[in-house]
Amino acid sequence: MVESLRIDLNCDLGESFGRYVLGEDAAMMKLVTSANVACGFHAGDPAVMAHTVALAKAHGVALGAHPGYPDLQGFGRREMRMSPQEAAQIVLYQIGALAGIARQAGLTLRHVKPHGALYNQAAQDPELAMVIAQAVFDFDPRLILVGLAGSELIRQGVAVGLQVANEGFPDRAYLPDGALMPRGQEGAVITAPESVARNALRLVREGVMVNGDQVRVDTLCLHGDNPEAVENAKAVRRILDAENVEIRPF
Amino acid sequence: MVESLRIDLNCDLGESFGRYVLGEDAAMMKLVTSANVACGFHAGDPAVMAHTVALAKAHGVALGAHPGYPDLQGFGRREMRMSPQEAAQIVLYQIGALAGIARQAGLTLRHVKPHGALYNQAAQDPELAMVIAQAVFDFDPRLILVGLAGSELIRQGVAVGLQVANEGFPDRAYLPDGALMPRGQEGAVITAPESVARNALRLVREGVMVNGDQVRVDTLCLHGDNPEAVENAKAVRRILDAENVEIRPF
Amino acid sequence: MVESLRIDLNCDLGESFGRYVLGEDAAMMKLVTSANVACGFHAGDPAVMAHTVALAKAHGVALGAHPGYPDLQGFGRREMRMSPQEAAQIVLYQIGALAGIARQAGLTLRHVKPHGALYNQAAQDPELAMVIAQAVFDFDPRLILVGLAGSELIRQGVAVGLQVANEGFPDRAYLPDGALMPRGQEGAVITAPESVARNALRLVREGVMVNGDQVRVDTLCLHGDNPEAVENAKAVRRILDAENVEIRPF
Amino acid sequence: MVESLRIDLNCDLGESFGRYVLGEDAAMMKLVTSANVACGFHAGDPAVMAHTVALAKAHGVALGAHPGYPDLQGFGRREMRMSPQEAAQIVLYQIGALAGIARQAGLTLRHVKPHGALYNQAAQDPELAMVIAQAVFDFDPRLILVGLAGSELIRQGVAVGLQVANEGFPDRAYLPDGALMPRGQEGAVITAPESVARNALRLVREGVMVNGDQVRVDTLCLHGDNPEAVENAKAVRRILDAENVEIRPF
Repeated sequence: MVESLRIDLNCDLGESFGRYVLGEDAAMMKLVTSANVACGFHAGDPAVMAHTVALAKAHGVALGAHPGYPDLQGFGRREMRMSPQEAAQIVLYQIGALAGIARQAGLTLRHVKPHGALYNQAAQDPELAMVIAQAVFDFDPRLILVGLAGSELIRQGVAVGLQVANEGFPDRAYLPDGALMPRGQEGAVITAPESVARNALRLVREGVMVNGDQVRVDTLCLHGDNPEAVENAKAVRRILDAENVEIRPF
Repeated sequence: MVESLRIDLNCDLGESFGRYVLGEDAAMMKLVTSANVACGFHAGDPAVMAHTVALAKAHGVALGAHPGYPDLQGFGRREMRMSPQEAAQIVLYQIGALAGIARQAGLTLRHVKPHGALYNQAAQDPELAMVIAQAVFDFDPRLILVGLAGSELIRQGVAVGLQVANEGFPDRAYLPDGALMPRGQEGAVITAPESVARNALRLVREGVMVNGDQVRVDTLCLHGDNPEAVENAKAVRRILDAENVEIRPF
Repeated sequence: MVESLRIDLNCDLGESFGRYVLGEDAAMMKLVTSANVACGFHAGDPAVMAHTVALAKAHGVALGAHPGYPDLQGFGRREMRMSPQEAAQIVLYQIGALAGIARQAGLTLRHVKPHGALYNQAAQDPELAMVIAQAVFDFDPRLILVGLAGSELIRQGVAVGLQVANEGFPDRAYLPDGALMPRGQEGAVITAPESVARNALRLVREGVMVNGDQVRVDTLCLHGDNPEAVENAKAVRRILDAENVEIRPF
Repeated sequence: MVESLRIDLNCDLGESFGRYVLGEDAAMMKLVTSANVACGFHAGDPAVMAHTVALAKAHGVALGAHPGYPDLQGFGRREMRMSPQEAAQIVLYQIGALAGIARQAGLTLRHVKPHGALYNQAAQDPELAMVIAQAVFDFDPRLILVGLAGSELIRQGVAVGLQVANEGFPDRAYLPDGALMPRGQEGAVITAPESVARNALRLVREGVMVNGDQVRVDTLCLHGDNPEAVENAKAVRRILDAENVEIRPF
């Protein structure tokens, strides 16, 4: 008898700030099982965080922290050279801040996923990955660390004793080493909903190739910052439902 | 038989930022029983917070959050008109952030004391005081809320079910309603160590007069942001020791 | 022979930030004669400012600085209690910053209009109004100071020797003293395009009543931060054109 | 007949922020001929800038802008990966902001020297150096661009048509390519006043070796952020006076 496949669907949410609205949060909350909530450094502010936590609660979506570099203008996508210790401190600070906001809603955090340049650097740099993983563990050893499938961050998460979730990106092209093709390059971002959906199904069934090794995928990242993304997310859900893949939190 | 008097001594600490050093933290940690640690909005950054938490741990000083307005240039001393809800959100955010940093050191928070303009506004404004008290309670109902002795913040803290600590200022002059004389006015700040020490003893013995009522004082605020402050703190400890006042955490 | 009426139309622009897009800048630039550009404190960043300056240049729209409080989360709409001197310094800083960006495009500034809470406080507080007016004069005595029609800011601008522009708001209700009805109150904001247009025409013809005195209006503020605003702006232009009011920079 | 040697002495000043005091500005203003004033991104705020401009005016010290990355916690010493265009925009913004503050004192800017990581990156990266040089030129073609002696920033400054000043560091060790030895390495920072003074004299007489070529030095950087630095500065002045080197602005 075949074990049925299952997958978590996650989305970066709560990335508005003050008067600035970004993302289709209300629509995406209905489509995902895990919400990665910005913590005020690359996006989000205490009011946005409180609103996003309430939204996750209303939809029964698992709550996670999405810490990034302190760079609102650059949306956390510009590399900063801080020491690994400084990086760990900003991660702890942001996880704690979101956990504080979440307590008023009676929620606790279930996972942590670094954002943007911090995510990408932690996918490659063992020392950075290690201190981030340790910070997450120190905050709460039951937290799940979400990182690029097969990356250094996943390795270090396992090493410090955390549960990890290998993340796949159905709307992005991959390099042979498992890294994402940089956004600037042609073909890096996949926009057609049916292509995204097919990629999603393939990622669930076959995982990601990382230097020739097959790495399973535990969660798919669904972007939510434009109306098309909602269509993509729906297309992904349709194909997974049609193929009897169970959608549930990791 | 006479019950012996006792008092907590607190100090605002961790108010450095990046390369900027402020306060005699190492000296003051030896002299106080409670540390109110800045949380990155009016002062402090994740690295300073981690350092300050470690210092408190090394000296066995009780750890508290010291949340303020998001105004580093004004050091949280300039009033901002945010909605009570926004104020509650920034308080939760900051308490959480410090709690996150503290977890890496294995510490939990024991108290919360708002800073600067937020402290002063919460001493007078019932709605603001209430939402702050509720935020502290929601974060952790065992936290102790520190506020100006006899103020609205103390009243609302009691109302929501928190333990509270009435704070006295031995280096400040009081108005008849229990408010502090504003810093700008003549005689508002007391600098001679012996005067500060005598005031400390009087506050412990007699409390503060608030509109004709005597309000007991649970904790004395010792400033630590200049070398003289260390002398004042020592003078306070000397007089309290000489008069058999027990110095211990509230 | 009757002198034909004329009016300037201004809009607050460049209020995006980083990835966050706010306002229909491209559409509004075609409809106004003066652009008030955010300077990075309440909104805007150096990249947004450069883009907005280029847009103003392309459309031949007069360029002005729109300095506000350092409060991105609150969009500069939350009162801050800084000293008049501090307020003057942040105004000079922001005017200078925009002037720096504008130089790369070969443009100079023509006017300054404070934003949000700073605008409203300067409309009432003589000392604040005076230091702001002086700061504008010190930057460049040829700058035109834009303020609420008949307000303290206008009075102080005249007193320091600046040219001033009395501003009217066709989409807002007024109080008898010439102040705007606060946004929270019912009827404070007028949304129907034909009502806004009629108000615009009335403001041009009759000015604003300030404590019983008629004050002429030199410029109308057209909001540009929602699609309806563009419709309002077009309606205003239509009625002014139909009534032979000349639309040109003050 | 021998032409007498001459040199400019510069110092990074105005690096305080809000309540945070950094640097011996009052002492250093008496010892230098050029002041590089922080512009609010890596250090400094509008009030500090106004104070520093007044101090420079009182001492007749030439005024320059010292723009850095937007990273107060890291004091602008942490590399950020922004696009060259973004870097140019933050430079223009900061030059303009200081120029705005300076106008109230009736001063104009004479030079621009990038700070910290921006300075070091611009010393090596031709594209970054070029856009910075172009931004300075666009702001005012009469400004003098200060950069590491023999570096890419100097080359690009010349290329765009600016006057440039080659800067030498008497308290730092050099690498063979003319770069400064990174602060972390042993021997990178020279602290003994007599060594600093000897280095200063050598830099004036022999310049810096850059890949085997001798590059003349137009200005020496005297650090001013600790009391010892004042002693170093005095030692440098003594040796230069003794050796008849004329100290005057470049």
